[in-house]
Amino acid sequence: MPRNAFYAQSGGVTAVINASAAGVIETARKYTKQIGKVYAGRNGIIGALTEDLIDTSRESPAAIRALLHTPGGAFGSARYKFKGHDERGREYERLVEVFKAHDIGYFFYNGGNDSADTCLKVSQISQTLGYPITAVHVPKTVDNDLPITDCCPGFGSVAKYVATSMMEAVLDVESMAKTSTKVFILEVMGRHAGWITAATGLASRKAGEGPHILLFPEIPWNEDAFLARVAETVKQHGYCAVGASEGLQDKDGKFLSESGLKDAFGHAQLGGVAPMLANLVQSKLKLKQHWAVADYLQRAARHIASKTDLEQSYAVGKAAVEMAAKGMSGVMPTIVRTSSKPYRWKIGVAKLADVANVEKKMPRDFITPDGFHITTKCRNYLLPLIAGEAFPPFENGLPKYVRLKNLAVRKKTHSDFKL
Amino acid sequence: MPRNAFYAQSGGVTAVINASAAGVIETARKYTKQIGKVYAGRNGIIGALTEDLIDTSRESPAAIRALLHTPGGAFGSARYKFKGHDERGREYERLVEVFKAHDIGYFFYNGGNDSADTCLKVSQISQTLGYPITAVHVPKTVDNDLPITDCCPGFGSVAKYVATSMMEAVLDVESMAKTSTKVFILEVMGRHAGWITAATGLASRKAGEGPHILLFPEIPWNEDAFLARVAETVKQHGYCAVGASEGLQDKDGKFLSESGLKDAFGHAQLGGVAPMLANLVQSKLKLKQHWAVADYLQRAARHIASKTDLEQSYAVGKAAVEMAAKGMSGVMPTIVRTSSKPYRWKIGVAKLADVANVEKKMPRDFITPDGFHITTKCRNYLLPLIAGEAFPPFENGLPKYVRLKNLAVRKKTHSDFKL
Repeated sequence: MPRNAFYAQSGGVTAVINASAAGVIETARKYTKQIGKVYAGRNGIIGALTEDLIDTSRESPAAIRALLHTPGGAFGSARYKFKGHDERGREYERLVEVFKAHDIGYFFYNGGNDSADTCLKVSQISQTLGYPITAVHVPKTVDNDLPITDCCPGFGSVAKYVATSMMEAVLDVESMAKTSTKVFILEVMGRHAGWITAATGLASRKAGEGPHILLFPEIPWNEDAFLARVAETVKQHGYCAVGASEGLQDKDGKFLSESGLKDAFGHAQLGGVAPMLANLVQSKLKLKQHWAVADYLQRAARHIASKTDLEQSYAVGKAAVEMAAKGMSGVMPTIVRTSSKPYRWKIGVAKLADVANVEKKMPRDFITPDGFHITTKCRNYLLPLIAGEAFPPFENGLPKYVRLKNLAVRKKTHSDFKL
Repeated sequence: MPRNAFYAQSGGVTAVINASAAGVIETARKYTKQIGKVYAGRNGIIGALTEDLIDTSRESPAAIRALLHTPGGAFGSARYKFKGHDERGREYERLVEVFKAHDIGYFFYNGGNDSADTCLKVSQISQTLGYPITAVHVPKTVDNDLPITDCCPGFGSVAKYVATSMMEAVLDVESMAKTSTKVFILEVMGRHAGWITAATGLASRKAGEGPHILLFPEIPWNEDAFLARVAETVKQHGYCAVGASEGLQDKDGKFLSESGLKDAFGHAQLGGVAPMLANLVQSKLKLKQHWAVADYLQRAARHIASKTDLEQSYAVGKAAVEMAAKGMSGVMPTIVRTSSKPYRWKIGVAKLADVANVEKKMPRDFITPDGFHITTKCRNYLLPLIAGEAFPPFENGLPKYVRLKNLAVRKKTHSDFKL
């Protein structure tokens, strides 16, 4: 007898996380012997805890296909940290209650580091709570900081967006610098890992082309070195373009832009490195500056998604179902690079115990010795990930994104759960 | 005997100002009887004053064609305010000296309000300084604030960018709002006119879809009304998305984000409305917020340019040459809308005396009575301007933008000019 599947999106969404959803749903629809319906959690894992399930079988094939070109989380995502510290916690007991009520035998969790840990614990429910379930993690994070996998679905698209945006802004600043802005700073995401910052560096293909300075979270902030380099660059090239990580920190690990606020995971809420740097440039160097903070624009920019990233995002969703159908649990499909030139990749597999809560930062040899740019090695790693365009359809001048019906599954547990 | 032409870009560049340059150059190349070479000013009018001229005849037809898909100012632009207050000032005398040396009989000035005034004065040189010259202004401004013309080349593309970006960010925020960000603010350009802010409103097509609140420079800032509307929107829809103009000002006309700095024209340098509003939301409403400042990204985003805007930008460049060839001077080609549904437009003509230094703000009936959104009338005005896509070619994952050779014309005046 086929058992139903549960799929949820977790953490920050991306331009292509819905492609993974489509990969899961379309593939599950083919495994009719093993898998019944795919229920999605409304607002991620919260949908499971509150028994707010979405019946994806009521969405047309065309609507599911349209997820391939729609950014954001089609079913809603969540930043929710389980209060129970182990797999016997009250959240896990509640999951068993809801899953039992809806005969859910497969758990697909689409997220980053935190959710890999949750998915691992769900895979252990079979032992700890005696409820048989197959749990597979579907990797997703714009931060590109999951271990083992060569890259993370979601990253290639944000990389393409920031590289393109930086290239365009550089052409703008370069053409105005004689009488106007001399220093331009683009702040990008990446709390602890500088992968997105590195991608802004792809805009500089020749000596002298901006961005001239990249500020990585992996390299401790040094005000004097930064200002000296800015002044020197403006003198030499007439302007200076900077790609800066939101997670820039001093040598003691203190974020420059810490607002004092924490998110649901207890992580510091960041934002505002660019204006801080711009003020510094203005006050210390007396150079006219402009700054941009891309924020959610970068991770939602489906209109300039990477075709490679889109294909990989779909592939990990598809592979997750195939693995689950084979009875593999507590695992995650990975991207394995088999060749860089020409770029070739295949799907591999990682144990979640090796993935959960591990952050992959930029290797030191991806950053130039002076700490201010990327090396050729890094460039060769990054370039294939932004390759190819996959423009969404447009209608009346705007992308034609889908909003699903998201019809609820009738509740069965008759009990509430307090989040 | 044909006389040479001078072309210069002025003020803030756009995603499609180079399409106007291509329109001028390609058309001039056809008027061999009237027009010799087209010299471009390196860094705009500064290139004329310092006799730093670029010989565009040394660029291949393919390179000029590539300007159609390249953002920024291909020859460099300038923010430079003439010190002389009338057309007898020292700058105008210097222009005559340089133009005479290079037999320049045509002056094409590609800019906004300020440059229309300069172009008008150049057209008067024939009388005031006795140097025969035909001067035609080529309209360009992302702000869409030139009078007479139905719209301004450059605006449609920034409008398409901000509407697309807002639509994407809204899908992101909407999907995370249950447990994360409740209020998202996107700051866009538009110092005194809310056209770009209005364009962010195009992302909201149905009741309840963000953006829910637009903050126009035309509507005096009211903190209480704003906060009340944010709180109400979050209660009703779970999140609130805001499009805010950098030029937001209080009832006394004071900019909220004034940094105390002035640009070369004496205009206040703005920036930072979004973080200011976000702080307010956080402190007064205790709602989690995120904010983005698009800054130069919006006006350089050739990758998501409007096809309509691109065609109009080329057309005004072409028309300027045709007008000049007919002996028309002191004029500017305009966009005349002959029909909205279906959208049809043609080229018209305006006298520069009617254009110079006049700012066209949003009509009050384009803004809803409560001041927080756009009306259907505004939507009908805006939608045709963002219609159609005109993606640039891509290579290795990034747009393939051109950098011209920009070879200098040999100097002839043997005299310097102090800017």
